Amino acid sequence: MTTEAQSSQSVKIAYLGPQGTFTELALRDLAKKFELDAEGLPCLDVPTALKKVASGEADRAVIPIENSVEGGVNASLDALARTGNLRIIAETVIPIDFCLVVRKGVKAEQVKRVGTHPHAWAQCRNWVAENFPGASHVPATSTAAAAELLTGDRYPGFEAALCNRVAAASEGLETLASGIADNSQAVTRFVMVAKPGVLPAVTGADKTTLQVRLPDNEAGALLSMLEQFSARGVNLSRIESRPAGGPLGAYEFSLDIEGHILEQRVQAALVGLHRTCPQVKFLGSYESASGHEVKVLPGTSDQAFEAANDWIASLTEVQ
Amino acid sequence: MTTEAQSSQSVKIAYLGPQGTFTELALRDLAKKFELDAEGLPCLDVPTALKKVASGEADRAVIPIENSVEGGVNASLDALARTGNLRIIAETVIPIDFCLVVRKGVKAEQVKRVGTHPHAWAQCRNWVAENFPGASHVPATSTAAAAELLTGDRYPGFEAALCNRVAAASEGLETLASGIADNSQAVTRFVMVAKPGVLPAVTGADKTTLQVRLPDNEAGALLSMLEQFSARGVNLSRIESRPAGGPLGAYEFSLDIEGHILEQRVQAALVGLHRTCPQVKFLGSYESASGHEVKVLPGTSDQAFEAANDWIASLTEVQ
Amino acid sequence: MTTEAQSSQSVKIAYLGPQGTFTELALRDLAKKFELDAEGLPCLDVPTALKKVASGEADRAVIPIENSVEGGVNASLDALARTGNLRIIAETVIPIDFCLVVRKGVKAEQVKRVGTHPHAWAQCRNWVAENFPGASHVPATSTAAAAELLTGDRYPGFEAALCNRVAAASEGLETLASGIADNSQAVTRFVMVAKPGVLPAVTGADKTTLQVRLPDNEAGALLSMLEQFSARGVNLSRIESRPAGGPLGAYEFSLDIEGHILEQRVQAALVGLHRTCPQVKFLGSYESASGHEVKVLPGTSDQAFEAANDWIASLTEVQ
Amino acid sequence: MTTEAQSSQSVKIAYLGPQGTFTELALRDLAKKFELDAEGLPCLDVPTALKKVASGEADRAVIPIENSVEGGVNASLDALARTGNLRIIAETVIPIDFCLVVRKGVKAEQVKRVGTHPHAWAQCRNWVAENFPGASHVPATSTAAAAELLTGDRYPGFEAALCNRVAAASEGLETLASGIADNSQAVTRFVMVAKPGVLPAVTGADKTTLQVRLPDNEAGALLSMLEQFSARGVNLSRIESRPAGGPLGAYEFSLDIEGHILEQRVQAALVGLHRTCPQVKFLGSYESASGHEVKVLPGTSDQAFEAANDWIASLTEVQ
Repeated sequence: MTTEAQSSQSVKIAYLGPQGTFTELALRDLAKKFELDAEGLPCLDVPTALKKVASGEADRAVIPIENSVEGGVNASLDALARTGNLRIIAETVIPIDFCLVVRKGVKAEQVKRVGTHPHAWAQCRNWVAENFPGASHVPATSTAAAAELLTGDRYPGFEAALCNRVAAASEGLETLASGIADNSQAVTRFVMVAKPGVLPAVTGADKTTLQVRLPDNEAGALLSMLEQFSARGVNLSRIESRPAGGPLGAYEFSLDIEGHILEQRVQAALVGLHRTCPQVKFLGSYESASGHEVKVLPGTSDQAFEAANDWIASLTEVQ
Repeated sequence: MTTEAQSSQSVKIAYLGPQGTFTELALRDLAKKFELDAEGLPCLDVPTALKKVASGEADRAVIPIENSVEGGVNASLDALARTGNLRIIAETVIPIDFCLVVRKGVKAEQVKRVGTHPHAWAQCRNWVAENFPGASHVPATSTAAAAELLTGDRYPGFEAALCNRVAAASEGLETLASGIADNSQAVTRFVMVAKPGVLPAVTGADKTTLQVRLPDNEAGALLSMLEQFSARGVNLSRIESRPAGGPLGAYEFSLDIEGHILEQRVQAALVGLHRTCPQVKFLGSYESASGHEVKVLPGTSDQAFEAANDWIASLTEVQ
Repeated sequence: MTTEAQSSQSVKIAYLGPQGTFTELALRDLAKKFELDAEGLPCLDVPTALKKVASGEADRAVIPIENSVEGGVNASLDALARTGNLRIIAETVIPIDFCLVVRKGVKAEQVKRVGTHPHAWAQCRNWVAENFPGASHVPATSTAAAAELLTGDRYPGFEAALCNRVAAASEGLETLASGIADNSQAVTRFVMVAKPGVLPAVTGADKTTLQVRLPDNEAGALLSMLEQFSARGVNLSRIESRPAGGPLGAYEFSLDIEGHILEQRVQAALVGLHRTCPQVKFLGSYESASGHEVKVLPGTSDQAFEAANDWIASLTEVQ
Repeated sequence: MTTEAQSSQSVKIAYLGPQGTFTELALRDLAKKFELDAEGLPCLDVPTALKKVASGEADRAVIPIENSVEGGVNASLDALARTGNLRIIAETVIPIDFCLVVRKGVKAEQVKRVGTHPHAWAQCRNWVAENFPGASHVPATSTAAAAELLTGDRYPGFEAALCNRVAAASEGLETLASGIADNSQAVTRFVMVAKPGVLPAVTGADKTTLQVRLPDNEAGALLSMLEQFSARGVNLSRIESRPAGGPLGAYEFSLDIEGHILEQRVQAALVGLHRTCPQVKFLGSYESASGHEVKVLPGTSDQAFEAANDWIASLTEVQ
């Protein structure tokens, strides 16, 4: 009975697998923060993880969305915008560094080829060039997959793998180096996604994620879109152009703005976008991982909007 | 009984007098348009006419507001903005040309000095220089007053007066020339003012008049104010800077915008002004004299606003 | 010989007369500042004064350009913009207050009618209403003319005149009250005008006066014009809309900007205006009366422009 | 002797190898267009190819810069901005579709695993899911590398490879399907890079590529940057935000604008950027692959700039 009760309360969370990836680290972090009894469902790729939420097979998904070195995670941004009706409800930021692992007993001088995901390779290239000059890259589908291949019996085509500390702790592996990162400040931002339902509450330190398609002409249209925000004192914290899917040169914009959809200045800006852009997708309002309180400019508080609305009402009511 | 009934229905309209001014012509024009049984109350100046409405002594006031040659009528713009709580409810545009009148029997070659209001003089100066070279100006408090002085017994200090066709028709005067105007397109715009009450209905060809004080810094603040309009597709049809009353260099702006306060794009722009400007005075929404339908840009119709508001509601309602 | 030498050095300055007006006060102020041996040529109106400079009859003209209570002096703004090729080379600001004068022996209780220029009347109306209730206005062509009429033998139609302290000192007059002004901060700004020639030097506290006609559409065009300034960090210190002379609703803008045409950010803004506006008139660069140093924003100094131009040159020069 | 002469005229072009990639197709296309006797130097990655040009080992490099499905090629954008002093001198656009190849004799029903570069996999995923349900991805360092592995003796871990038509033509391979692309309009844009020297001539259909770092605050700064272009009528054809390399949330922008650095409106916009942004990198002006003539807005032609400069000169020259 207890088991049943627990299992009925446990939350199924799809994520970019396999086990041992940075995404699983992020999932654990978010589960702890929200005190969720999380059951992880590793998925092959981001679109698969999102589809599991859309179909109801999973309650949540955790996916990487932005890396401080590589930029937006294109596959995640695009999948999120295209998979119908999903909402970001939380985010977390995870420092990214790597371990170089080998099978137990393998010596540093034996390392000629290094297996890992291409993104991990891109973030450790300089370190490898310096410490293992001449070592070449063998691509793997994930950092965890590279580590796992080393634990098997067969030679996977490389002597060492770059993976995170969780995967490095697998049985049969030995860590030659840890804390590896060409850029020591490298972090990745992960988001937790759910179907629409209860909106996260306004905390005063919130972000709202949007995907916006602009009308025809590019330059003037981007300026006009940004003015819809500035006219209401809404600040942008991220902007990414993404190909709209048709011919080269047609873009959508993936945006994070400061503020929550339950705040009036954000609603006013969204009304402006909805009126003037052919497509606006609302992808969620949620507390920012930084927890920094949003600076509300003079004349853009909910009180300022209410006072203005009261004034309009007083002008238009007829005695 | 009939008389009583009529008098109880007659509308008292204060105006910039005396009788026979262009303002009285405008009053007659507006009274006819609105089928008012108008009783004109000539006033010494515009502030006096407006005060009569504010105090209830008059039901309406008619005042000149803008001349196509001289620009905004400063005294009217300022008085309207400062006299508490009044609203423009209608406007009319009157072509401005003048008659040169003399006492019966006076000959053209006897005309050495011309009495008239300084604004009238400014608009006929070239014509006088050409037709009565050497004739000088004697200022009068109005064009009608100049004409009236000629009908008296005493020599008023001038042989001829420049006045409108109504005053020129006074007994004892002779018209030496008519249709006089250095600029043949000259017109003056007059407005009818009332205390707040029933708003004129939306006609689709409406204007809204505002007086706006900007926050501190001039240049950026004016740009920001104009962006509050452009972000909602609201066009300006007039802008006048007026001294704010303190030191040189502090301005307010007198504006006409296209649209009616009962239209949502206008309300949204006014909300933006109210939030960001230290003072916004609403001076009325009313049908424009031109009757030209306001061009509503894509995404700025009431329907577009309602669709956007419905979208926001669908995003924020919690299942 | 000495006399000849002096007369050859004296500078003929046309001004809005007659003698004893505030404009003459401004002329004396400017002559002293520039150590000019000035010979004043009083003129009937502003256009006449400007024409004397254009024709060479006068070397300079001094005219009122802006009043802190009434706003821009329309006749001056328009005349300056239309009289071909003249340049403002200096400005001064004069406090405006009035004296109430009567013929010697006339008592306060005898004052029923007050002669003065309409602008002076507008600035003293409240004071008169309080101190001489019931006294009415008799318009005069200038404050000085009103005072002078009182010195004659004939009754000029009024018992008292409002004029400045210079005119009040005329023989035969008595001052009943002085320092009269409804607004105690009232000042008028006057400018000195010359034919193009030596530009005033850059002082760091300079203004540039322009008259700009906008392309067709009003609202967007005004925004675009202001952006030409803000894109170069140039601040506006005055903006006046003036009727363009054709139908109602077509405007030109009279502008003062902070900075000198010999500064690069001002040149860049003027290039932008010249490219995009159908007409731009340069009416002079000159030291501001306030002497306040212009705040040069980061990236808008001459050094910043030169560094940018050097960079462009380095990119386009071909080895 | 002939050989020597030829080799002295041949142009060494580094590119993202190995032989048989789409980048090599682009290289051949560009070599033909410019009639170059090209010697291709395949490189492991984009930074290596660019370094060969910077060091003088190669005369040119050809790299992919933007994909119509995946967006900007991050590694190329970043490497180009960071590798000192290189310039794009030409571009070409190549349609992207794939062949599915196997070792001769292998049957479609034997295909369980497909080797290819992750980007190729992303662009064919749906096609594979439909035609080879259950087949999984084995990452390779390039599409050509995957094909080459199939030509060897050893089993490379997959039965089929996705590669381009050049690589598919290798001896020992058989093409099971060609023209494969989830998005049939998919294209990739490639650029040819050289050290600064002779600028490509102005053709009227040119682009200029820039990398711009904004001052501190994000939202307002982006708006200001875009206004530097719009104030000169310069249109953007591409904008990508790229992480600036430090903490999450600091961006640079990779831009393509319409026009050539030898055109004055482009120079004026670049001067504006140089003055107001902490870092602007000029990455080249070159003819666009589309060949579409740039639409020059009224007031932004070289003639308009010259007329404006002449006007300024006439105002500032002293007689």
